[in-house]
Amino acid sequence: MLKRIALLGSTGSIGSSTLDVASSLKGKIEVTALSADSNIKLLAAQAHLFKPKVVCIGNASLAQQIKKILPFGTKVVCGNEGLGSIVSMRDVDTVVFAISGSACIEPLIAAIKKKKNIALANKEALVSAGAIVMRLAKENKVQIIPIDSEHSAIFQCLEGKRTYLKKIYLTATGGPLRNIPRTKFDDLPARFILNHPKWKMGKKISVDSATMMNKGLEIIEARWLFDVDEKNIEVLVHPEAIIHSMIELIDGTFFAEMSIPDMRLPIQYAVTYPYRIEARPKKLDFAALSKLSFEKPDAEKFPCLSLARSAVKKGGTYPAALNIANEEAVKNFLAGRIRFSRIPHIIEKVLGKHKASDKRLSLNDIFDAQHWAREEASRLCH
Amino acid sequence: MLKRIALLGSTGSIGSSTLDVASSLKGKIEVTALSADSNIKLLAAQAHLFKPKVVCIGNASLAQQIKKILPFGTKVVCGNEGLGSIVSMRDVDTVVFAISGSACIEPLIAAIKKKKNIALANKEALVSAGAIVMRLAKENKVQIIPIDSEHSAIFQCLEGKRTYLKKIYLTATGGPLRNIPRTKFDDLPARFILNHPKWKMGKKISVDSATMMNKGLEIIEARWLFDVDEKNIEVLVHPEAIIHSMIELIDGTFFAEMSIPDMRLPIQYAVTYPYRIEARPKKLDFAALSKLSFEKPDAEKFPCLSLARSAVKKGGTYPAALNIANEEAVKNFLAGRIRFSRIPHIIEKVLGKHKASDKRLSLNDIFDAQHWAREEASRLCH
Repeated sequence: MLKRIALLGSTGSIGSSTLDVASSLKGKIEVTALSADSNIKLLAAQAHLFKPKVVCIGNASLAQQIKKILPFGTKVVCGNEGLGSIVSMRDVDTVVFAISGSACIEPLIAAIKKKKNIALANKEALVSAGAIVMRLAKENKVQIIPIDSEHSAIFQCLEGKRTYLKKIYLTATGGPLRNIPRTKFDDLPARFILNHPKWKMGKKISVDSATMMNKGLEIIEARWLFDVDEKNIEVLVHPEAIIHSMIELIDGTFFAEMSIPDMRLPIQYAVTYPYRIEARPKKLDFAALSKLSFEKPDAEKFPCLSLARSAVKKGGTYPAALNIANEEAVKNFLAGRIRFSRIPHIIEKVLGKHKASDKRLSLNDIFDAQHWAREEASRLCH
Repeated sequence: MLKRIALLGSTGSIGSSTLDVASSLKGKIEVTALSADSNIKLLAAQAHLFKPKVVCIGNASLAQQIKKILPFGTKVVCGNEGLGSIVSMRDVDTVVFAISGSACIEPLIAAIKKKKNIALANKEALVSAGAIVMRLAKENKVQIIPIDSEHSAIFQCLEGKRTYLKKIYLTATGGPLRNIPRTKFDDLPARFILNHPKWKMGKKISVDSATMMNKGLEIIEARWLFDVDEKNIEVLVHPEAIIHSMIELIDGTFFAEMSIPDMRLPIQYAVTYPYRIEARPKKLDFAALSKLSFEKPDAEKFPCLSLARSAVKKGGTYPAALNIANEEAVKNFLAGRIRFSRIPHIIEKVLGKHKASDKRLSLNDIFDAQHWAREEASRLCH
């Protein structure tokens, strides 16, 4: 088995973990292309280690700069066009989407149309354009292997059992605010909110964990990945983050996938799928762990959960609007312009004003909705 | 799907649960034959409900008695010969082995030779004659579907993953003596020892749960069912009995099968395999459950665990001798002839004296070892 990968977003958290996996699987994984938005130093360093044929960087001016520090012979492309070209390369088997945000939609669709294997860490593409992405994947007979630990868990649990699926249980650590009363949220420093108890992640997703919008987005993602109605997707708070998610079958049997919380495991699974290759993660010792605990999520404390549910129930462009309103609100929170507790309010207001048409969605409808939602949310933040 | 079953041991605990399952799956499960050792009243009542073509009872004199109370036209057979005939019936697809003890070996082998599907609740046949049974199953292309909740869990977890299996984790409630100090064991009334905290079972297996020999036998069973070395089978005490067992794959990923503790679930799975059919067991609510806990088994308090491990390591006829020494010791404990703490001592003494030949085992070697072990153990109990 040799899988040649294009890695989009190589300088982020999932990107670095993917390269860790590639290093540990030399001879089985070959890195054909790398992309990053703006971190040219790290991207060049990665290029020296992994010798990709092509690297892609955010824009033409960064492309000029990175050329000087890349290994001789590495081709440089840039921007959306660049992403489109690396996901289409003939010597790429699998495209790993480790970029966050809605910018992922177009290269993802391009990769599907080129019938590449998809290893997907990005949530927003499915949240915003799930119906379109999944229809194209089906038409092109492309399987999307999720990297998100929850969806990877469900995907793995379903092996041989898809016909019998009744319910999905997305587990959640509960984030950094699980034991903090709602009234104290706005008194906390941003570094507290960014310090996730179990997973090391980027800033945006760390805020999403604190609001639990992350789990809301995952409900929408699961709805598309596994073709399950939102009402059959439950969220279960499980602070130890050992069970990454569970399924319930029609006969009342449950399956859980478990491991230490280490993103390299779902990444390795996604890039080596359908094979599994030996790995030696830190030992998971259940006796030392002593217990796994569970509780219901607090819907009043974390209104983002119901906002996400209501968006997916309404369908159409609502999830896209939800996602962008959230992106914009989080950006403004991180910039210090709004308080933490404003995030769900802004999303709620945007969704309240959103009007979606009933016709079958085009990609342009989604882009229009995203554009509208960004302006609305931005206005509310200023 | 219609599966016609012969149910061996219909009046016991697993047998009754199997008939519950058959009732709930009318039109999908047909009961062609029933057998019981001696409970003619219950067997006749079951025959009136399920209209089997044949019933089998322990001996000729009981056969004479039951004839008078059976539905008109029901054929009666008896003894080992009777069992041999019902497992071979042409209109039987699946034989459910719900009888306990080593008497299961011969009808099990007969059923395998007739290429019947096997739903196996009996532990002792694999403990004593695992090598022979599994070789015959392979030769006859017969799949053995375990009913024991632990092995059913492993079997279900392995769907699509058998190639990658690294370790098996058999979970154990810890039995009624988990929180009792070893020095108090002999002061407890038998009814305390027979009162299992999670599962309602027969007397023999309840005592085996108290000594944890039940888990020792399950290690040996798992060794054969899943072709895994004893050193890769771990026991994990999990008092809530929600996770019925777990597997670990070569990449450090774990899978657990979970449900409320209700034997009808693994039975239904075994008799409808490879399909799953809707069932509505009591709801498993993780948030209400709040936690699943784990601890290491106490090897000093429960020496039967290491006795079983040492027997399977030595191989040959040692597991058969272990099983019979245990059967005999438990029988004498239940009869009030020996104290509880004597059970492991007797097994240890019998195994210490046992001599096994190195040659490839025949069924007769096993029967000889069983006969010898029963006499030895019996002598030690008197």
